[in-house]
Amino acid sequence: MTSSPPSLTFPPTPLPTEAIRLQLRTWPEVETYLEHCRGVIVPLGSTEQHGPTGAIGTDALTAEAVALEVGRRSGLLVTPAQAFGMAEHHLGFAGTVSLQPATLMAVLHDVVLSLARHGFERIYVINGHGGNIATGRAAFAQAYATAAARGLPGADRLRCRLANWFTAAPVLQLARELYGEREGHHATPSEIALTLHLEPSLEAVQRPLPEAAPAGPIHGPDDFRRRHPDGRMGSDPFLARPDHGARFLDTAASALVEDLREFLAV
Amino acid sequence: MTSSPPSLTFPPTPLPTEAIRLQLRTWPEVETYLEHCRGVIVPLGSTEQHGPTGAIGTDALTAEAVALEVGRRSGLLVTPAQAFGMAEHHLGFAGTVSLQPATLMAVLHDVVLSLARHGFERIYVINGHGGNIATGRAAFAQAYATAAARGLPGADRLRCRLANWFTAAPVLQLARELYGEREGHHATPSEIALTLHLEPSLEAVQRPLPEAAPAGPIHGPDDFRRRHPDGRMGSDPFLARPDHGARFLDTAASALVEDLREFLAV
Amino acid sequence: MTSSPPSLTFPPTPLPTEAIRLQLRTWPEVETYLEHCRGVIVPLGSTEQHGPTGAIGTDALTAEAVALEVGRRSGLLVTPAQAFGMAEHHLGFAGTVSLQPATLMAVLHDVVLSLARHGFERIYVINGHGGNIATGRAAFAQAYATAAARGLPGADRLRCRLANWFTAAPVLQLARELYGEREGHHATPSEIALTLHLEPSLEAVQRPLPEAAPAGPIHGPDDFRRRHPDGRMGSDPFLARPDHGARFLDTAASALVEDLREFLAV
Amino acid sequence: MTSSPPSLTFPPTPLPTEAIRLQLRTWPEVETYLEHCRGVIVPLGSTEQHGPTGAIGTDALTAEAVALEVGRRSGLLVTPAQAFGMAEHHLGFAGTVSLQPATLMAVLHDVVLSLARHGFERIYVINGHGGNIATGRAAFAQAYATAAARGLPGADRLRCRLANWFTAAPVLQLARELYGEREGHHATPSEIALTLHLEPSLEAVQRPLPEAAPAGPIHGPDDFRRRHPDGRMGSDPFLARPDHGARFLDTAASALVEDLREFLAV
Amino acid sequence: MTSSPPSLTFPPTPLPTEAIRLQLRTWPEVETYLEHCRGVIVPLGSTEQHGPTGAIGTDALTAEAVALEVGRRSGLLVTPAQAFGMAEHHLGFAGTVSLQPATLMAVLHDVVLSLARHGFERIYVINGHGGNIATGRAAFAQAYATAAARGLPGADRLRCRLANWFTAAPVLQLARELYGEREGHHATPSEIALTLHLEPSLEAVQRPLPEAAPAGPIHGPDDFRRRHPDGRMGSDPFLARPDHGARFLDTAASALVEDLREFLAV
Amino acid sequence: MTSSPPSLTFPPTPLPTEAIRLQLRTWPEVETYLEHCRGVIVPLGSTEQHGPTGAIGTDALTAEAVALEVGRRSGLLVTPAQAFGMAEHHLGFAGTVSLQPATLMAVLHDVVLSLARHGFERIYVINGHGGNIATGRAAFAQAYATAAARGLPGADRLRCRLANWFTAAPVLQLARELYGEREGHHATPSEIALTLHLEPSLEAVQRPLPEAAPAGPIHGPDDFRRRHPDGRMGSDPFLARPDHGARFLDTAASALVEDLREFLAV
Repeated sequence: MTSSPPSLTFPPTPLPTEAIRLQLRTWPEVETYLEHCRGVIVPLGSTEQHGPTGAIGTDALTAEAVALEVGRRSGLLVTPAQAFGMAEHHLGFAGTVSLQPATLMAVLHDVVLSLARHGFERIYVINGHGGNIATGRAAFAQAYATAAARGLPGADRLRCRLANWFTAAPVLQLARELYGEREGHHATPSEIALTLHLEPSLEAVQRPLPEAAPAGPIHGPDDFRRRHPDGRMGSDPFLARPDHGARFLDTAASALVEDLREFLAV
Repeated sequence: MTSSPPSLTFPPTPLPTEAIRLQLRTWPEVETYLEHCRGVIVPLGSTEQHGPTGAIGTDALTAEAVALEVGRRSGLLVTPAQAFGMAEHHLGFAGTVSLQPATLMAVLHDVVLSLARHGFERIYVINGHGGNIATGRAAFAQAYATAAARGLPGADRLRCRLANWFTAAPVLQLARELYGEREGHHATPSEIALTLHLEPSLEAVQRPLPEAAPAGPIHGPDDFRRRHPDGRMGSDPFLARPDHGARFLDTAASALVEDLREFLAV
Repeated sequence: MTSSPPSLTFPPTPLPTEAIRLQLRTWPEVETYLEHCRGVIVPLGSTEQHGPTGAIGTDALTAEAVALEVGRRSGLLVTPAQAFGMAEHHLGFAGTVSLQPATLMAVLHDVVLSLARHGFERIYVINGHGGNIATGRAAFAQAYATAAARGLPGADRLRCRLANWFTAAPVLQLARELYGEREGHHATPSEIALTLHLEPSLEAVQRPLPEAAPAGPIHGPDDFRRRHPDGRMGSDPFLARPDHGARFLDTAASALVEDLREFLAV
Repeated sequence: MTSSPPSLTFPPTPLPTEAIRLQLRTWPEVETYLEHCRGVIVPLGSTEQHGPTGAIGTDALTAEAVALEVGRRSGLLVTPAQAFGMAEHHLGFAGTVSLQPATLMAVLHDVVLSLARHGFERIYVINGHGGNIATGRAAFAQAYATAAARGLPGADRLRCRLANWFTAAPVLQLARELYGEREGHHATPSEIALTLHLEPSLEAVQRPLPEAAPAGPIHGPDDFRRRHPDGRMGSDPFLARPDHGARFLDTAASALVEDLREFLAV
Repeated sequence: MTSSPPSLTFPPTPLPTEAIRLQLRTWPEVETYLEHCRGVIVPLGSTEQHGPTGAIGTDALTAEAVALEVGRRSGLLVTPAQAFGMAEHHLGFAGTVSLQPATLMAVLHDVVLSLARHGFERIYVINGHGGNIATGRAAFAQAYATAAARGLPGADRLRCRLANWFTAAPVLQLARELYGEREGHHATPSEIALTLHLEPSLEAVQRPLPEAAPAGPIHGPDDFRRRHPDGRMGSDPFLARPDHGARFLDTAASALVEDLREFLAV
Repeated sequence: MTSSPPSLTFPPTPLPTEAIRLQLRTWPEVETYLEHCRGVIVPLGSTEQHGPTGAIGTDALTAEAVALEVGRRSGLLVTPAQAFGMAEHHLGFAGTVSLQPATLMAVLHDVVLSLARHGFERIYVINGHGGNIATGRAAFAQAYATAAARGLPGADRLRCRLANWFTAAPVLQLARELYGEREGHHATPSEIALTLHLEPSLEAVQRPLPEAAPAGPIHGPDDFRRRHPDGRMGSDPFLARPDHGARFLDTAASALVEDLREFLAV
C-alpha cells in the first residue's frame, strides 16, 4: 500500500451501471480497482412512511439512484444500499422499519471497517434521510477510533463523508424554484418527484391532499404522529412530476460529483 | 388487533412486482394490508467474494430475486433486502463487506421489532448466505425476548422463520442433477446461474477455472484464504448457464411458497 | 401527573445561582418544582485541547456558564455539567479526554431517562462542543424509543433539544463583528474570550500565535493532528479579550432563553 | 510458539478423570501440556425444563459427561461446563435459567479468547442443547474477528468446532433403534436415559406420561408453552432406561473422539 | 403471587444433595417449591491459576461445595455453578479462563432475571472469587433496573446478595488460627485445604514452596505476573491439609446459613 | 516514554487551584507535565437525593472538593468531575440522575483509556459515592484488558485506584468522634457538613428531622424508598456544622495524599 492514495481519473463519459456496481464485480476486479482508486460510494436510505401518497422506500430508492449516477459519472464503485436507516420517529406509521441509533452506528462502523481493511481510504456515503445524519457522523468517529485501535494499515488516511443529496445547494435551489414554501420538510415534492421518475407506477397513487401540518421539531413516534397525522411535514407532494424528478437526479448527481472530487483530493 | 391472524388468500395469478414491494407502497396501503394479512417477507443477503468469476453481490441479488418471486406468487409484501450480512470469513478478499455477528443480530432484531409493532406476526426471512443462518436464528430468539419484555401486543403470536432458498430440497436436487459433485459449497454453479439469469452482463467474466480447493470447515478470514486461495470451495461455477438460473428461480420460489403457506398457517 | 405540562413563569429578575443549581437543591424541593415546571437544563461540554493557549476545559466551562445564566434568567433547574464529551479526533493532543460515541450516547440516554422518570418533559441540553451534536441527537432518538418501550408515563410528552450556544445566530453575528474571518472553527476567539471572562488566570498564557492551519473536514486523531499541528482550525484566539467574553455570555444567554421559551411552549 | 500445532498422541487406555479436568490441574501443568497439545474441550449445556419428569440440568449434565469421557479417551483437557445456555423459549417453565443470545455469545467469545491467549488453537465445544447451536457459531465468528483484530499470535491458526453429542450419526441411529418415532425432539428418551445412568436418583420420578404434543417450530416462551403444555416435544421419556444411558455415553464418546481426531488434524 | 414471600422452614436435618440441586429437579417440582419458598442459591466461581500447586478450579469447586452444603442445611435450591468468572488479571498464567467484566455482568443479570421471572425473590450468590465482587454487585443494580423497567411482577421484592464464603468472619478467624500471616491473599491455604478435602487427588501435587511474593494491589495481567511470578500473593498453600478443608466447609456453611436466614427474612 | 514513571516531587506548599485543574491548562502544558509526572486525579461523584435536607449534588461536590485539595497539596493534575454516577437505587426520589452500571463502566473505561493514551500511568479516582465502587472497579479491569488488547505503550504500567474519601480511616474516626452512631450510612452528617463548608447557602434548609429509618441492604429503587421513606439511612444530618466540614476536608485530603503518595510509588 502506498503512502498516498492514487489519483482518480474521472471518465470522459459515464460508465455503464454494471461497471460501477460492487455487487456485479468480482474480487480480483476490486483488487485491480484499488490499484488506481481508493474511493467508494455507499448509498444509505431509510424505509419509512412518506405521507399518504409517498412510497415507503423513498429515501433508499433516491439515495441509490443518486449514488449510481454519481458512480457512473465518476467511475467510483457503488456498494449495495443500506435500505434500513434510523427512523424511530416514524414508527407510528405502518410499514416503517427502523434501526435503533446504536444499531445503525454499528452497521456503518462495520461497513467502513470492512472497506478500510481492503485499502479503501475515502468512504463517501450518499444519504437520503435526515434521520441518519447524526448517527452516521457518530459512526464515522467510532470507525476512526477502531481503525486506529486495531492498528489497521492506512488508519490515518481513512476518511468518511456523509453527503445528503437533498441538501446539496443546487438541489435546494431547484426545489425552491419549483415548489417554493410548499416543499416542506418530509414527504417533500422533490423527493417524491425523484421516485416518480424512477418508478412510474407510483404516479397512480398521487392525488391532491389537504394542507399538511407544519414542520416542527422531531421527538418520539407518538408525538410525531400527533403533530403530523398523515405523516407529512409542511409539504405538498402532489406538486411533484416525473420530469422534475429527472432534473433532481441530474442536479444532485452534478453537485455530489463535484463534492466527491474535492473529497478524493484532500 | 384480533386474537388470531387473518387468513391469507394466495392470488390465482402472480401479482405485479410493484404490488408487493414494501418500498413502493404507502403507509395507508400497509395499514389496509394488515387487515387481511400479518405476514411479510424480508430478503437477507451478503456482500462477499464469490470466487474469481462470481459477483460479489451474489447472495443479496439471489435472495432478493427469490423473495420477489415468492411475493408475486403469494401476495405477501417484500421489504427491501438487507444486502450486508455476516461474512467475516470472506474478509480476506477485496470487496467483501461484513457485519459482525453482534451487528447483524441487532439489525434483524430491530427489523423484526419494527414490523411486529405494526402488527406483523409472521416474519419470513429469505436468506441467500449460509453465514447468516446462525446469527439470524440468534436474532429471532432475542427478538421474541424483547417483544415479550416490552409487552408488545401480539408478542406471543410473533413468529420468525429463516428460509434458505439454496437448501430447499428441490433446489438441492436440481443442483445435483445439473452439476453433481461439482456444485461444491461456495461460489456454486447454482447461485452463479441465478445471477447470470438476473444480470446478463455477468456472462462476460465467466471462464473455465482450475480445480477448486475442496470444501472444509470455516474459521477466520486468513485461514479461509489459505485453504481456498481463489475463494471457491469445491465448486465449478463455469458450469452455470443463464437458463439454469431461470429454473433455479422457479424451483426455489415454488418450494418456498409452499413453506411459507405452512408457516402462515401455524 | 397532568396530561399537559404546567406553564412556566419566567422570573422578572434573575434568580441567584443557588436557586437553580440542581446540585444545591433537595429532593422535596425538586418535587415541588415539578408541580409548576417540567423543564430542566443539562450543560454538556468536552475536555479537549483548544490550541496552544486555550484551556482544555473550554467547552465545559462555557457550556456550564451559559447554562447557569439561562437558568438564572428563566428559573429552570440546571443539572451538573457532563464535562467529558465526544472528542475522539482531539486525542492526538495531551490532556484530551474523550468518550466514544456509543458511550456518550449511553450517558445522555440515561440522563434523559432518569429525568423523565421524575416527570421532566423538556430536557434542554446546552452544548459547548460541535463533536457532541451528532451523538447527542442520536441519543435523544434512543431515549424516546426506550421511554416508549418501557411504557414510561409521559413518554409521548418527552422532548429533548440540543442547543449549541456557539451557533446561536446573535453569537455568530457578534463573533463576525469582533473577529471577522479570524474567528475560525476550533479554539476560536469567541470561546476563548468567554473563558477569559470566567477564569481570569487564563489571561497569563495568551500570546500572539502564527497563522493557524485552515479549517477542514474532521476525521481521525492522527489525521487531525497532521492537518492542525497546534490544534487550532483557522482561528486567532489571541484576539479574545475578557470583556468580549462578558458580551458573549450575555448574548448567548439571551438567545437561548428565547429558544428555551419556545421549546417549553411546544 | 511453533508455526504448526504439535501432534497429539491419543493415549492407549483412558486416563483417569483427574488427569484431564482443567479444574484439577495447575498452571505449570497446563504450560507443559501446551508443549505437545493445542486442543481443549469445553462442555456447553443449558439449565432448562425437560418435561414433567426430566431433570432441569439434563443438557449440562450430559454434555459434561460426554466431554469428560472424550477427554479420558483422547487425553485432551476439559474445562468446566458452562451450564447456563440460551434457553429463552423455555422460560415459560419454572426453573429454566437462560442467557440471552448476546450474552451467551459474549461468554463463548471470552472463553475462546482466553484459551487462545495461552496458545490453544483447537477449541472443541461439546454441546448438549440445540438452542446453543446458532449462538455458538456466531460466537466463533466473533472470536476469530477479535483474535485477528487484536493481533493475537496464532490468530490465523485458531479454530473452534461445536460438536453436538446428540446429533452424532451413531447416536441418532441408536435412538432410532431403541425408541423409533417416540424419541421426539425435546426431553427425549435418549438424553433422559443418559441422565438416569449418571444420576440414579432420577429414576424415582420417571413415570408413564400421556402422549406428548408434537414437535414443531420454536418461537417465544409463551408460544412454546401453549404448543407444548408439559414441555415435551413429541417425546416419550419414560422409555428411557439407565443401561440405555450407558450405551449412549459410549456411543457419543466414540463418535466425538473420531470427530475430534479429525478436527485436531486439520 | 402473594404480596410477601412465604416463610421458609429450615429442615431439622440436612437434606440429601439430590433434593436441592436444581439440575436434578423437574419444572413441576420447582413450581411446587415456589409455593413455599422464594429463595435460591447460585454458586459463582472462577477458573484461574492458583499458584504452582493450586487447582485452576479452586474458586468454582469451593463455591459449589459451600453452596451445596448451605442448600442441604437450609433446604434452598442450588443452581449449577457459573464456573467462569472475572479473572482478567490472571490471564498471564496458562489455563486461566476469564469473562470480561461486561460479560460477567450480563451473565449474572440474565440469571437473576430468569429466576425472577419464575417468582424467585431472594437470589443468594455464593461466591468463591474476589475478582467477581465488584462486577457481581454492578450486575445486581442492573438487574433491579431491568426488572423494574420490564414491569416484572415482584420487581420491587427482588433482592440479591453476594456472599463470599472466604470472607465470612468465622472463616477468617479459622484461617488466622491455622495459618496466621501465612494465609496470604491468593492461592491461600484455606481455599487449597478445601480443595484437598473435596478432591483428594490434589494432594499429590502439594509441596513446599519458596516464600511467596507479598500481596499488593491488582492491575492488569502483565503487571500481576511481574509482581507475583508464581501466581501466589503472600500465601503458603503447602500448609493446607484435607482435614482443615473439612473444617472450612463446615465453618463457611454455618456462617452462610445464618446470613441466608437473615437475608430471607428481610 | 521511559520504562518507569518519573518520580514526583510533592510541592512544599499547596499550589493555587488554577495550577492543577486540567480544565485550565493547555495541551502543551500537559505534555510538559507528563515529562515529570504520570499521575492524574479524577473526581467521581453522583447526583442523587440526600434526604430531605441534603443537597442532591453532595457526592459530586465533596469528591471534587477533596480532589482539588489533594491536587493542590500533591501537585497532581485534577480532571473535571464526573458528576453523574451509578445511583439506580435512588431513582425513586425526584432529582436523582443515574447512569446504569454498564454506562458508568463505559465512561470510566473511556476516561482511563484516553489518559493512558497520553502516557498517564497512575489514574487516581477520588470517589464520593458508595454506589460507584463496584462499577468503578469493574471498569478498571475492563480498561486494563483493553489497553493490553490495543497494544497501548505503557499498558503494563497502567494502574488505577478508586479512593473513597468518606471511608478513609481518619475520616471515619472523625465522624465517629463527632456523631457516634448518628453518622448513619446515607445523607450522613459528615458529608452534609462538607457541603455546608463548601456552599454556605445550604445552611438555610437544614433543620431537625425525625429519627431516620435504619440502614440496611440496598436493592432496587422502589424497595429503597419503602425502607427509607425520606431518603436517609440511619443518619442525623442536622448534626452537621460548616466548621466540621472544614475539618473533614482537611482530614480527607491528608489521608488521601498519603494514599496517593504510596500509589505513585508502586
